[in-house]
Amino acid sequence: MSGSVSRPRAAVVVTGSELLTGAISDRNGPWVAQHLGELGFEVSHVLVVGDRPADLADALQFVRGAALVVTSGGLGPTADDLTAEVVAGFAGVPLELDEPMRAHIADILAAWARRTGFDGPALEEANRKQAMVPRGATALAPVGTAPGLVVTVPDGPVVVVLPGPPRELQGMWPAALAAEPVRALLESVPPARSRSLRYFGLPESEIAATLRDIEAGGLDLSGIEVTTCLRRSELEVDVRPGPGASADALADALIAAHERHLVSADGTSTDELVATGLLDKGWTVATGESCTGGMLASRLIDRAGSSAYVAGGVVAYSNAAKTALLGVPAEMIAEHGAVSPEVARALADGARERLGADVGIGITGVAGPGGGTEAKPVGYVCFCVTTADGLVIARDPRLPGGRSDVRERSTDAAMHLLLRAVRG
Amino acid sequence: MSGSVSRPRAAVVVTGSELLTGAISDRNGPWVAQHLGELGFEVSHVLVVGDRPADLADALQFVRGAALVVTSGGLGPTADDLTAEVVAGFAGVPLELDEPMRAHIADILAAWARRTGFDGPALEEANRKQAMVPRGATALAPVGTAPGLVVTVPDGPVVVVLPGPPRELQGMWPAALAAEPVRALLESVPPARSRSLRYFGLPESEIAATLRDIEAGGLDLSGIEVTTCLRRSELEVDVRPGPGASADALADALIAAHERHLVSADGTSTDELVATGLLDKGWTVATGESCTGGMLASRLIDRAGSSAYVAGGVVAYSNAAKTALLGVPAEMIAEHGAVSPEVARALADGARERLGADVGIGITGVAGPGGGTEAKPVGYVCFCVTTADGLVIARDPRLPGGRSDVRERSTDAAMHLLLRAVRG
Repeated sequence: MSGSVSRPRAAVVVTGSELLTGAISDRNGPWVAQHLGELGFEVSHVLVVGDRPADLADALQFVRGAALVVTSGGLGPTADDLTAEVVAGFAGVPLELDEPMRAHIADILAAWARRTGFDGPALEEANRKQAMVPRGATALAPVGTAPGLVVTVPDGPVVVVLPGPPRELQGMWPAALAAEPVRALLESVPPARSRSLRYFGLPESEIAATLRDIEAGGLDLSGIEVTTCLRRSELEVDVRPGPGASADALADALIAAHERHLVSADGTSTDELVATGLLDKGWTVATGESCTGGMLASRLIDRAGSSAYVAGGVVAYSNAAKTALLGVPAEMIAEHGAVSPEVARALADGARERLGADVGIGITGVAGPGGGTEAKPVGYVCFCVTTADGLVIARDPRLPGGRSDVRERSTDAAMHLLLRAVRG
Repeated sequence: MSGSVSRPRAAVVVTGSELLTGAISDRNGPWVAQHLGELGFEVSHVLVVGDRPADLADALQFVRGAALVVTSGGLGPTADDLTAEVVAGFAGVPLELDEPMRAHIADILAAWARRTGFDGPALEEANRKQAMVPRGATALAPVGTAPGLVVTVPDGPVVVVLPGPPRELQGMWPAALAAEPVRALLESVPPARSRSLRYFGLPESEIAATLRDIEAGGLDLSGIEVTTCLRRSELEVDVRPGPGASADALADALIAAHERHLVSADGTSTDELVATGLLDKGWTVATGESCTGGMLASRLIDRAGSSAYVAGGVVAYSNAAKTALLGVPAEMIAEHGAVSPEVARALADGARERLGADVGIGITGVAGPGGGTEAKPVGYVCFCVTTADGLVIARDPRLPGGRSDVRERSTDAAMHLLLRAVRG
């Protein structure tokens, strides 16, 4: 490929005043950005704006230079849902009632009204409002009740307008990509062959130093974008080549430099590696959790098909539960404390035996904010993995942060111990 | 208060190319936005930009009209961490080495190097880079290793520059608010007395219709901003008055109109209501989870002090686990199926009895993507709450969405059943 072609830029504009009050986090921006990146776009911005029309209009102007703009939200039935109107204004065309779309939405709403008992003028109004389409736009069939839109702005970007609920947005995505203006744009996008490396327990500054070493060693890094992202205890390093460049030599050098800390060299997640590892061994896993309180079990069960390798788990939050459900001896708790390497091992063994699993993992720790002592401060967490054939892996680190940090980091650490067990 | 004062606007600029690849979700934007809103600012935008300096500079220009801009990220040791430099450029001042800050960071790094064994020139470089401060700015002491900044831009906003790791950002927030330029700005901000209502099982279109009715009934809604946010099965309605207006009359009318669906009238979360309700009754709760796989237990334990009302739980994912750990009769599973109201009740009773709790909750359902039948399709979930004194509340809805939707909605529904039990 020629070095003169640069990747077309794309931007995401997420609407919703509720996203600016902090009540909820935006899930659409990251999802759309990821998918645009995989299609080969360079995502320049994700903007979250309120439901004020002027702010949305300003945001569209700000990203006017992008080839593709994807918006989410503001297609609902209430008066603050104004995206279709603002995008029509941005494109300089009027809104028109799309009669087939109105009839289509009416059918959906009628079925819903029968099921829920809500009916009447509120629905009628919602129906008409949601069927208003900018002239010349492609309307995308609703996944919920709101249709999506693809609008080509003269001398501007192609704007894809999607609904706010993540399930509806994701369900409509294939139809959006298939719409003619988007399809035509996609044909002009060169694929980006980026590499993604994942490390555990490696500080960011080491990657910075390694990059300087690699460059000093003579490798040309111009035209390659490296981003590092520290996510609790995992460091993800993305190596993205510009047009005409390759990420491979640099990625291989980074892999060789920190092999001991490498989790995966192809971006595969720890969760996926654990699942594959358990399946390959034909193992089932059982959890005995105290401070993480079900987070580890929930994470293991997150993946479809997890019943093949997850037996189950016990959330043994109280001492009585540890003893009654997992057979942790009350004397052991009295002697060593509920947070101790001994109890972590007993939780692992108990979960494995009571649930008839091949591998057990026990976690007990001081999540805080209370309960810490000098010897066992907040953040002190004991882990143990045991298998039926005698493997024992134990750790008792002190993890930083507040209650939710400690619980999340504990769940991460537990996944990495499981990964060691299935790889060992 | 006079009607002519409008709330000052604030914007949040989050940097990090990793946030544009969709690898992780931004947690800082919502957090900062919420806190700015509570301080009385109108948050106009949350922008996420990559680590490219030109994009960050453009973003700062875009929000130049705000009174306050908070940035997060880009203060780390690597070459793509350029926020301090770009903000200095935005303010038109050079970067200078802050020697006391350099020494302070050196101490932090030295302690860290001793603990981890990482040391040497990479750390030296990181130290120097992180101590570069725009001339005239206030430097905020690091919570991790990166200092924050407060920069007053001539004829522009006050810019607060905070680190990207949420723990560090949140830890530095009080110091940022106490810095002189921010403190002076805060004195000019009128407090916003907004009201927040939370409903369960109420569609958005009903709120739209109710608002029209209320306005037709003669209540003046001008100067009041109403935002609705549907979050799975909960609808949050925020009523925000502009300067001189009051949210109370409208909020009271909305409460009266949909009392049956009201969860809370003061924004209190369902989780908080459940916790308070359990504490008030002096009850402990035990969970017997199948498809949610620990999500409910983990959510109950999320709150500090939860050991006072959470006994624990069992993740009985396999049929064998249901029988071995919670005493669900194997014949019951054979006759009615693992996903059945009968088994949900047996899970609730089993969890309650085995864990010695006052209230038990059982959840079993078809989370998908596989495993659905015509009679019990994906999304069919059975819930049961039982108490020692004979209360039984059961539900078996069909929930929409994919695997994670079904699991999350199931956890929501379970929390609402628990709320009914503690309120009943």
